[in-house]
Amino acid sequence: MQEKLPRASFQKILSDDKSLYEFLHNWEVYGLVLIKGAPLSMGQVRKVAERIAFIRRTHYGEEFSVIAKPNPSNVAYDAGPLQLHADLPYYQYKPGAELLHCIVQAEGSGGANTLVDGLHLAEMMRVQDPHSFNLLSSVHVDWSDIGVEDGEPFHKIHQAPILCLHPVTQELERINFSQPQRDSFFRIPLHIVEPWYRALKAFHAMAMDPSNCMTLKLNPGDMLAFDNIRILHGRKDFGTHLSRHIEGCYVDWDEVRSKSRVLEGALAS
Amino acid sequence: MQEKLPRASFQKILSDDKSLYEFLHNWEVYGLVLIKGAPLSMGQVRKVAERIAFIRRTHYGEEFSVIAKPNPSNVAYDAGPLQLHADLPYYQYKPGAELLHCIVQAEGSGGANTLVDGLHLAEMMRVQDPHSFNLLSSVHVDWSDIGVEDGEPFHKIHQAPILCLHPVTQELERINFSQPQRDSFFRIPLHIVEPWYRALKAFHAMAMDPSNCMTLKLNPGDMLAFDNIRILHGRKDFGTHLSRHIEGCYVDWDEVRSKSRVLEGALAS
Repeated sequence: MQEKLPRASFQKILSDDKSLYEFLHNWEVYGLVLIKGAPLSMGQVRKVAERIAFIRRTHYGEEFSVIAKPNPSNVAYDAGPLQLHADLPYYQYKPGAELLHCIVQAEGSGGANTLVDGLHLAEMMRVQDPHSFNLLSSVHVDWSDIGVEDGEPFHKIHQAPILCLHPVTQELERINFSQPQRDSFFRIPLHIVEPWYRALKAFHAMAMDPSNCMTLKLNPGDMLAFDNIRILHGRKDFGTHLSRHIEGCYVDWDEVRSKSRVLEGALAS
Repeated sequence: MQEKLPRASFQKILSDDKSLYEFLHNWEVYGLVLIKGAPLSMGQVRKVAERIAFIRRTHYGEEFSVIAKPNPSNVAYDAGPLQLHADLPYYQYKPGAELLHCIVQAEGSGGANTLVDGLHLAEMMRVQDPHSFNLLSSVHVDWSDIGVEDGEPFHKIHQAPILCLHPVTQELERINFSQPQRDSFFRIPLHIVEPWYRALKAFHAMAMDPSNCMTLKLNPGDMLAFDNIRILHGRKDFGTHLSRHIEGCYVDWDEVRSKSRVLEGALAS
């Protein structure tokens, strides 16, 4: 499956408008692009973001470093495995276009990413198991994140289903999926609890199915551009390889699409 | 009506947590707060934004100055009147909490703001004229903004109704309203065109009714904090007073509400 991944060259997207346009187009259409050839230093995700528009900041800052930290403010900052998830479900206005740059990677099998097209899963479930699909797209979950980052306390709450549909077209608009960020509150009628968990389990089983879930180990200098509205990502643990270092940032799809339209116009003229 | 406006002191919200909490609470509940006593220099909206969290950037930058400019990239940067509108309807993820700081004001009646609670109008229309309400909340409009700011071209497009309702609760989630940013494309069936324009005209008439529309002339040192998801704002022209200077910025409601929860917890303990 990795061989089919759309790819881009870091140097080309920085220097060539046509390459940048193709990269943005693939990012939007396929949800995932592997960028090769970034330098092994911090600040590279910012270069890509600022070639497009600008970084979308969150309470974790502009760039964030995924490294093992003492007393982490987020499960990502531990060395353990990360279940499949989408970032920031507790944001009403959730940043969508995500970049992860591998600066230092763990040896062996540790630190590899797992990746799933949540849009594909949702559309399969809509056909094969409409009862579960209806539950996951209608039952509101409390998403939350409470902590301190760089000395600043934050307390985010957002209520939304796992599968958010457009009210008119019923197309999938956004996936919220992150076990650690489901609140301990769950304000649903008692008789919905068991069916909802069965539906969640069914979605999980589809996600973990090797025919749907890709394992991809980034090499130092690789950058992953993916759609945080649609793609679920996880990570295998990297136990003793505590030097592993991924730098990430977000850009809003509004800005990515704007740049894409500007380039499309310029390249056509 | 101005006497009933919630107010806050610039110095107090910067220095005192209880005053900041009350200000944020009023901003969210009433949609509009008048802040008094800001210094007559640039950089004051940033101080308020960074007391909360951080500025939400758009293609117009972090802070934006509303002054008359040659070849303006936006109608706001002309000296003419501005119809009632909400900013940035062409953003899918539209910044919500807006600050406008009056540094230099025009003399006479020029430059006064007009302000309307769009949420109130929509709820009135839902009861009094449900047919118009249904049209304005279901017919998708193409919103767009194309131009160049600080040398960077942008091309935003977003499709959404004027009144955006929550798919389950049917509560008003957002108002899009800005004549200059309605695209020249309008992809609706021919038989909907006239009824839709009649509904728009009815909404406009409600907005211009003096019992719904407040005129408020900011004095130098005043800052207006309002909810860009809900409140419509306009401006009378300031023709020859070309030194008028308003500085503005946005903060996401996600960040405002986060700070509000953090303060509520801290003040209660």
